[in-house]
Order: sequence, then structure tokens, then C-alpha cells
Amino acid sequence: MEKKLIFVTNDDSYASKGFKAAIEVARQFGRVIAIAPDTVQSGKSQAITLFDTLRLKKISEQEDVTIYSLNGTPVDCVKFAFDYMLKDEKIDMTISGVNHGSNSAVNVLYSGTMGAAIESAFYGIPSVGLSNLDHSEDADFEACVEYGKRIVKAVFEQELPRPLCLNVNIPILPVEQIKGIKICRQTKGYWRENFYERKDPHGGTYFWLTGAFDNHEPEAQDSDEWALNNGYVSVVPVQVDLTAYNQLESLKGVF
Amino acid sequence: MEKKLIFVTNDDSYASKGFKAAIEVARQFGRVIAIAPDTVQSGKSQAITLFDTLRLKKISEQEDVTIYSLNGTPVDCVKFAFDYMLKDEKIDMTISGVNHGSNSAVNVLYSGTMGAAIESAFYGIPSVGLSNLDHSEDADFEACVEYGKRIVKAVFEQELPRPLCLNVNIPILPVEQIKGIKICRQTKGYWRENFYERKDPHGGTYFWLTGAFDNHEPEAQDSDEWALNNGYVSVVPVQVDLTAYNQLESLKGVF
Repeated sequence: MEKKLIFVTNDDSYASKGFKAAIEVARQFGRVIAIAPDTVQSGKSQAITLFDTLRLKKISEQEDVTIYSLNGTPVDCVKFAFDYMLKDEKIDMTISGVNHGSNSAVNVLYSGTMGAAIESAFYGIPSVGLSNLDHSEDADFEACVEYGKRIVKAVFEQELPRPLCLNVNIPILPVEQIKGIKICRQTKGYWRENFYERKDPHGGTYFWLTGAFDNHEPEAQDSDEWALNNGYVSVVPVQVDLTAYNQLESLKGVF
Repeated sequence: MEKKLIFVTNDDSYASKGFKAAIEVARQFGRVIAIAPDTVQSGKSQAITLFDTLRLKKISEQEDVTIYSLNGTPVDCVKFAFDYMLKDEKIDMTISGVNHGSNSAVNVLYSGTMGAAIESAFYGIPSVGLSNLDHSEDADFEACVEYGKRIVKAVFEQELPRPLCLNVNIPILPVEQIKGIKICRQTKGYWRENFYERKDPHGGTYFWLTGAFDNHEPEAQDSDEWALNNGYVSVVPVQVDLTAYNQLESLKGVF
């Protein structure tokens, strides 16, 4: 395989263990330019920075791997790479992650990691979003690197549909216990939130947003939640056109 | 029509002119609870606040219309309303906007206004996102209110598919010059960014993100950009399942 140019980003910041794991995957295939947020940007979705300035900092430079931080969102990092830093180069792929925590089901829409992957697909650059179900800071990324390499290799070697954006989640299991890769659809369900009410030392009321995922179809064997709960790596192909095509006809003449 | 309970939010803050326009639409149909961010949250997409506290403030209370601000994102406002403030009530609809600026084409994915509308659809509550192509602070919202009422009325009176999330954009035209409503699909294309490079007084480099939409199909008469450029109000039904179903088969056995 010829040497590729791979862009790496994430939403847990350049300092996260998962980011290093994503770079480890990418460097197997060629040259790596990595730009990640300078602070944690979890839950930032497809957000962009419109009213603040952006500053870039070079973190490290080794043969074939250069790492930067940017004080913006994951999507800012993609745009900065594609339309500024690498605008005259051919980027072969974006790897986003490895996220600390699941991006299965509707999380795909809240996730900064997947926001960056979707953004890449807008530009026609295939993207692989990798997420580890273990959200702890010192999570084990061995299985993520192993499966990440396998999936990235397949994307490079095979003719896959375009635009391509893969939402890959990896269960918390040793590599040898993972049953394989399952192509899935996004699980139906949503988060129900609990707002924890607290008082500050001055008597003011504040809230913390916290919640739990309510799976509407726990038995659906083609859903990503089922795959993950049953020991598989889940791969959901993500579309970037949000039109509900199946509703177009029924809305004509309604308004 | 029986009196409805309508939740209103936006991404331009509770102080924006467009927010008042959305409330004006909503109050025609019943009781209104409105919670909007306390500061401008444009481009915040589906972002949620995970690492900061949330504070609520009552702005005003009149018969049937109560307005609050929350120091969070548009999606935080939806979650706070649905899972805390109104959790024991039946909410009939969410109106998000009226946004100052277009949310056509891929803007649907960056938009905080549409992020809130999509979030509402997760919960099974039909939502209408309204956006005025005029992004100026003192934009004229007459046509938005007129068409907003017409669309909301139709959603209440007719049997429409669920989940329902409508991305409605209104051109900059006097009401009488608008040609009507067109059901559309999301235009293909994406933003190409220019990063303006500047120096701060201390010699440091910073950037501003700015760009222009690159329409890949300006002649497509079923696209929302075409409708808006030709004097129509565009309505795109938005889906909340991002699975690329047409790619599922071709990915099986690949990895």
C-alpha cells in the first residue's frame, strides 16, 4: 500500500490516552497530522467556533507524526486542517478518537468525536470514528488499536461507498474475547436526564445535567447497542444528509 | 382546536428578536413555556453541557407565556424543559428559533436552533425549527411569523409522520412576494472556510474561522437552497437516525 496522509483528531484533547491510540493506528499507514482540542470537548457535537479566536500550538514533531493543539472544537480542528494547514495536500482519511466513552446509538449526534468524523465526510474524506466503551482516563486501548487498524486497512484496500463515515465502538473486553465486527444500525432510544439540584455557598440554585440511555429496542440484533452488549465491535455507517426522504411525499400539499 | 402546550427555544438567546417572533407564533395555539440560552449559542449544534453547572432565571411571566433563560446550550434547554420543568406534563410541540440566519443545507448540522429541534424529536415531541435568512439583529420577522403559524397549524391539524422535525427557512422577502411553501431535501454541498490570520498586540498569532457555502447542485429544484433562492419558504423533514441504510449491505463481510 502506498504511504497515506491521515488526519487525526478527537474530542478528549491532545493529552488523552485515546488520542495516542488513534495516532498509533494512523501511523501504520503513512504520515500523520494530528490536531486536537486543547481542552476536553466531550458532548460538543458538530459545534463550530464563530465568536472566539483560534490559536494553534505545536505539541510535538517526530518522523511522520506531527501533533498540534487548537483551542476550539473538534470540527474547528477538521476545518483548520482541511482548509488551512493541509489545503494543498490530498488527505486520505480522518481518524477521530479514540473516544473515552461510547458513541453508540444517539450519542453519535452529541459526540464531538463523531462531529469531527461527520465533518470530514462533508469534505469527501472518508472517516473512521473510534470509541472505547470505557470512559475512564486510563482505559485500555489495546482492542481499539487492534480493531482500528483492521478497519482502516479495509477502508484503504476495498472499494467502499462514498461519502464514508464509520461510527466504530469497541466493547470493554480483552482482544481475544471480542467476537468480531458487526455492521449495525443506530439503536432507537434516547437519553432521559436527571437534573441534580444543588445550592451554592451563597444560596443560589444550580443544576448538573446527568442521565441514562433508554434503549427502546434492547432485543434488536441489528442495533449497535445489542452488538456491543454481546461482545462485538459495532460499525454503523453514518449519513450526512439529514433529509427524511421517506416523509417527503407525505408532506407535499400539507402546508 | 384544544389549547396546546408549546415549548419554545432558540440559539440566539432569550433577548433576540427572533425568539419573540417564535413566541408570537406559539401563543396563538395555547400555553407557552420558553427557555432560551442566556447568551448567543449560534453554531452549537447538538452540544450539551457536561462539565459546567446550569442556572435558570425567570425573565418574565404573563398569562400563558413564561420565559426563562438558562446558561447552557439549546439542547440543554430542551432537556431541562422535558426532563425537569415539564416532566409531568404533555408537551405538544417544540418551536425553535426564529433563527437569525439560514439553517438550510448542511447548516442543519451546525445549528443550535436545529440541534434543539432534533433533540425534541428524540423525545417524540414534534418540532418546527424556524430560520430567517436575514441574520441581522433587527431583521424583519413578519413573514416568519405568518408562515410559522401556517406550518404549526398544519402540524396540529393533520396526521403527519412521526418522529417529525421540520427545518423551515424563510427568504428575505415581504410576505406578499413569497411564492409559497416548498417541501425540499437538504442541498448537497459544504462550507469552505477561510482562516483569517491576525497578530495580537503581544505578537501571538490567532485565527478567525470564516467561510462560504459551496453549493454542489445549484440547479437542483428539489433542494432547499434552490427553493430559497427562488422565493419559496423551504421545509425539509429531518431524520434523527443517522444510519446510512443504503450502505449496510455493502459493508457486510468487509472488515
